[in-house]
Amino acid sequence: MLSERLTQYSVLTEEKLGKLLSESDLAPILKESMAYSVFSGGKRIRPALCMAACELCGGAPEDALLAACALEMIHTYSLIHDDLPAMDNDDMRRGKPSNHKAFGEANAILAGDGLQSLAFYALSLCPHTDALAAISKGAFEMVMGQSLDVNSGGDETLLRQLQDYKTGALFRAAVTSGAACANATKEQREALIRFADAYGMLFQITDDILDFEGEASVLGKSVGKDAKEGKTTFVTVYGLEQAKEYAKGYAHEAREAVLEVGGDGAFFTELISYTLTRKS
Amino acid sequence: MLSERLTQYSVLTEEKLGKLLSESDLAPILKESMAYSVFSGGKRIRPALCMAACELCGGAPEDALLAACALEMIHTYSLIHDDLPAMDNDDMRRGKPSNHKAFGEANAILAGDGLQSLAFYALSLCPHTDALAAISKGAFEMVMGQSLDVNSGGDETLLRQLQDYKTGALFRAAVTSGAACANATKEQREALIRFADAYGMLFQITDDILDFEGEASVLGKSVGKDAKEGKTTFVTVYGLEQAKEYAKGYAHEAREAVLEVGGDGAFFTELISYTLTRKS
Repeated sequence: MLSERLTQYSVLTEEKLGKLLSESDLAPILKESMAYSVFSGGKRIRPALCMAACELCGGAPEDALLAACALEMIHTYSLIHDDLPAMDNDDMRRGKPSNHKAFGEANAILAGDGLQSLAFYALSLCPHTDALAAISKGAFEMVMGQSLDVNSGGDETLLRQLQDYKTGALFRAAVTSGAACANATKEQREALIRFADAYGMLFQITDDILDFEGEASVLGKSVGKDAKEGKTTFVTVYGLEQAKEYAKGYAHEAREAVLEVGGDGAFFTELISYTLTRKS
Repeated sequence: MLSERLTQYSVLTEEKLGKLLSESDLAPILKESMAYSVFSGGKRIRPALCMAACELCGGAPEDALLAACALEMIHTYSLIHDDLPAMDNDDMRRGKPSNHKAFGEANAILAGDGLQSLAFYALSLCPHTDALAAISKGAFEMVMGQSLDVNSGGDETLLRQLQDYKTGALFRAAVTSGAACANATKEQREALIRFADAYGMLFQITDDILDFEGEASVLGKSVGKDAKEGKTTFVTVYGLEQAKEYAKGYAHEAREAVLEVGGDGAFFTELISYTLTRKS
């Protein structure tokens, strides 16, 4: 059920993203570099949340398709810029060379810039103007989170706020823009924001746990990559067991919020369970 | 008259930009780095064109203020990213250290990204949805122009198309978004696009001439900076005298287009004359 819905949303998203990228036909290298990262096997979680929120509030997935594509382009641009040498300096992303390794830094900067512009161009075609408000706010909060991260110096007291912006903001944008495309009620939107807040934390904490356990298993010892690199994560701050407890708590909060939205929330509850126990 | 109107528009723009930047209060270094470049003595030509187009089509300058601020933030982000080491690698901008020299590369990338997001957040507050369409298209075309520039290898046949995207796109976005904020007629919008196309070329060619003459006078010889650096400009391709002839021709085209819009076009005709004979 979950995987069927994810596939359905993903097929819709990929087709529309291809059409939107054709806006760059006259700048072939820009198009190629944007497409390289947009079509690189991402899980399309944000578009799925957007379209599922739209369905949960009584709309069709297609009603939220432009918003969904905008979210995925914004997420992708952030990954391209994050990987740059001046930021995280990552040579690989999703099993292949990162954008700047494949196209050079100048093209990677422009691929990111272009994807953000194209995301808002897509929203200019969307008749639900509240989707623009939700997504532009989320995109800006995401940059605030990045800035706090870059400049925090590992300050533990900033961890939750920073992750709430870095990861939570686009999840909030996903469900609120999806709800906007279904003309959802104020109560539905508020419950979806509560879901996104909790789900965003669940997603980030399980990501931290995976990073820690993945690297620890490779190294055959109990210290993961993040601890090694001096990064501040939920695992380095609270320890593995406590981080797992927090994940369970946020999963519970997220499920409660879905119930408050009303309607058939099976997609959301299955996604929560999947995320809590995910292996990648 | 021209300078009074420019000052009036500039005062409105600066005040509103300050309010919009306060959205980043919770990420102080992001705010500081964005403000550093936004308030660095730019001429605010794009906001002025936007508000003047709105007035020419019967609106008040304030009707176009959010669009005007969005344009200035997009222009500023493009300058920050252009100056990066991987792009033009400029250490100075408007007489002071460029953004990455002042805040480091990571913060400069984020300042640019944040300004683009904040521009579209500003547009989410603007009730004239056509302004979003115009500005998102212009922002994307600008990136296409940058990409063509980065990858053209100085190909002379690409010069006009490249400059039309790089410089012309935001001028088109300025006048069409301003017109949208005044609910202008289709005929007015089309004439304003013809103005922007010609004015954009005038602006770029006079910019190339200034760069050439400025550097040539410093060096005391007839080869300017762009020729020295192997850049392809209107002066390096057509020579100084022919470039000046082209500038006059575009100034004429721009004036004709303003007449077609109707109304009191004094601001525009004075701006055209000023740009044709500008010394900076």
